Amino acid sequence: MDVKAEVERKLEAAVSRASRDVCPPGLASAVSYAVFPGGARIRPLLCLGVAQACGNVGDAALSGAAAIEMLHCASLVHDDLPCFDDADTRRGKPTVHRAFGQPLAVLAGDALIVLAFETVATACQDDPRRLPAMVGILSRSVGMTSGLIAGQAWESEAEVAVGTYHAAKTGALFVAAAMMGAASAGADAAAWKDFGSLLGEAYQVADDIRDATSTEGELGKPVGRDAALGRPTAVNHLGLGGAVAHLDRLIDRALQAVPACPGQVPFREKVRAEVRWFVPKDHAQFAA
Amino acid sequence: MDVKAEVERKLEAAVSRASRDVCPPGLASAVSYAVFPGGARIRPLLCLGVAQACGNVGDAALSGAAAIEMLHCASLVHDDLPCFDDADTRRGKPTVHRAFGQPLAVLAGDALIVLAFETVATACQDDPRRLPAMVGILSRSVGMTSGLIAGQAWESEAEVAVGTYHAAKTGALFVAAAMMGAASAGADAAAWKDFGSLLGEAYQVADDIRDATSTEGELGKPVGRDAALGRPTAVNHLGLGGAVAHLDRLIDRALQAVPACPGQVPFREKVRAEVRWFVPKDHAQFAA
Repeated sequence: MDVKAEVERKLEAAVSRASRDVCPPGLASAVSYAVFPGGARIRPLLCLGVAQACGNVGDAALSGAAAIEMLHCASLVHDDLPCFDDADTRRGKPTVHRAFGQPLAVLAGDALIVLAFETVATACQDDPRRLPAMVGILSRSVGMTSGLIAGQAWESEAEVAVGTYHAAKTGALFVAAAMMGAASAGADAAAWKDFGSLLGEAYQVADDIRDATSTEGELGKPVGRDAALGRPTAVNHLGLGGAVAHLDRLIDRALQAVPACPGQVPFREKVRAEVRWFVPKDHAQFAA
Repeated sequence: MDVKAEVERKLEAAVSRASRDVCPPGLASAVSYAVFPGGARIRPLLCLGVAQACGNVGDAALSGAAAIEMLHCASLVHDDLPCFDDADTRRGKPTVHRAFGQPLAVLAGDALIVLAFETVATACQDDPRRLPAMVGILSRSVGMTSGLIAGQAWESEAEVAVGTYHAAKTGALFVAAAMMGAASAGADAAAWKDFGSLLGEAYQVADDIRDATSTEGELGKPVGRDAALGRPTAVNHLGLGGAVAHLDRLIDRALQAVPACPGQVPFREKVRAEVRWFVPKDHAQFAA
């Protein structure tokens, strides 16, 4: 099956079901605008890849994948708000608060958080055995201790360890995607935590490299913001060549961390083939 | 048992568990500030009253009650933001964004939404059979079609039916509280919908009466804001005496809507005794 198309269909079904009947039209538009058209949908595809490696891609996995993407979209909408990044563009178009105003941007983010939980609960209505684990994974991925919300809140603190910040801000949702794939397939979710964490770290380093080497047109959002905001990045810390070498090492470690599962070998091959998309240009040109 | 003390204990346990380990300290403080000290805790007490009437107040009911209160607190924090009500005080102290700044207010609201879902999932870990219904009730109570988020979003629309607005903004959480009490006790949640809806309508009318007849010191928040913002209220529409008579009729209808259950008679008596607290002063003095 074309998993990317399946993810889009699941997202469309969830958003349109949520907007049915008497939904305020501005809010319905803002939520849809925040989710479509999407980016690379890396996190839900990762979730489904893990579910497939564990031998079971069913409606629970698709719903879990869609839920994770909705939490990702929610965090982008709130992070872009004037009180945080004050971003004007995202995915090549005006941010939600620029297009719909701040009130609907705050509410669209809230609505997407709620919809994520509702989506997994609906999928587990007839067989709720996997639901506690799935809700737990979603909660921790965005929660105030080590999830996206914690990551964003660290920006309000005078001091934070860089590793703690990135683990919450970027890593948590990769960990959740990998664990959700396993949990939704009825496999041991905890065994996938290290893989998700290392892949998330690799993605963060790749993002730092993109931010330092791309143009706004290529990324669909402003570049160089991390440096402008004085945020610590792998490129600042290790130099461009060092960051690229670090990225390669992280990808190797992530592949080694893939736990035993029915589809371990093809899954590793797929991850190795797809992580090159983390960095749009061939990053070898920057290697020292 | 002292149910109000039990609710506080459950809320404290959930908030402190969520703030453990490496939670950003500012966020932990903002979330705690948003929840404690609480108001009358009407919604969680309603939830537990229904669970008791259905014959079963266990950890699921307490968790469901705490989750509903957390969603209520989240909505207050977001509704108070400068882009919505721009409120300076709430429950007799500065609002969260006045005390902690807008970024932490947005994040505290987000965190409380997530924590609500996490709390019910944790309570149902060993027996997940009631979890899909409980997550569904929470989702609908705040969701974008007819929940709190919808209610707030209607304020961004040029036109809305007053009934639709109040049902979403106030009624949805009363419906959820009643249905959650039944669902967590393993009873038929849908049978409690009308009771919750009528009680919510009564509370809204009582709130209109309070807003028109109290001082800021009595309420711990500014008064007369509904009139100042041109919002339709029962007092504007029916006059004070008419609003009080309407309130009494709604309470009678709510009591009639209490479905058959093991504790129907004492539950009705309790509701009749407690709704007088909806209006702090003896509202009889305003009756026509």
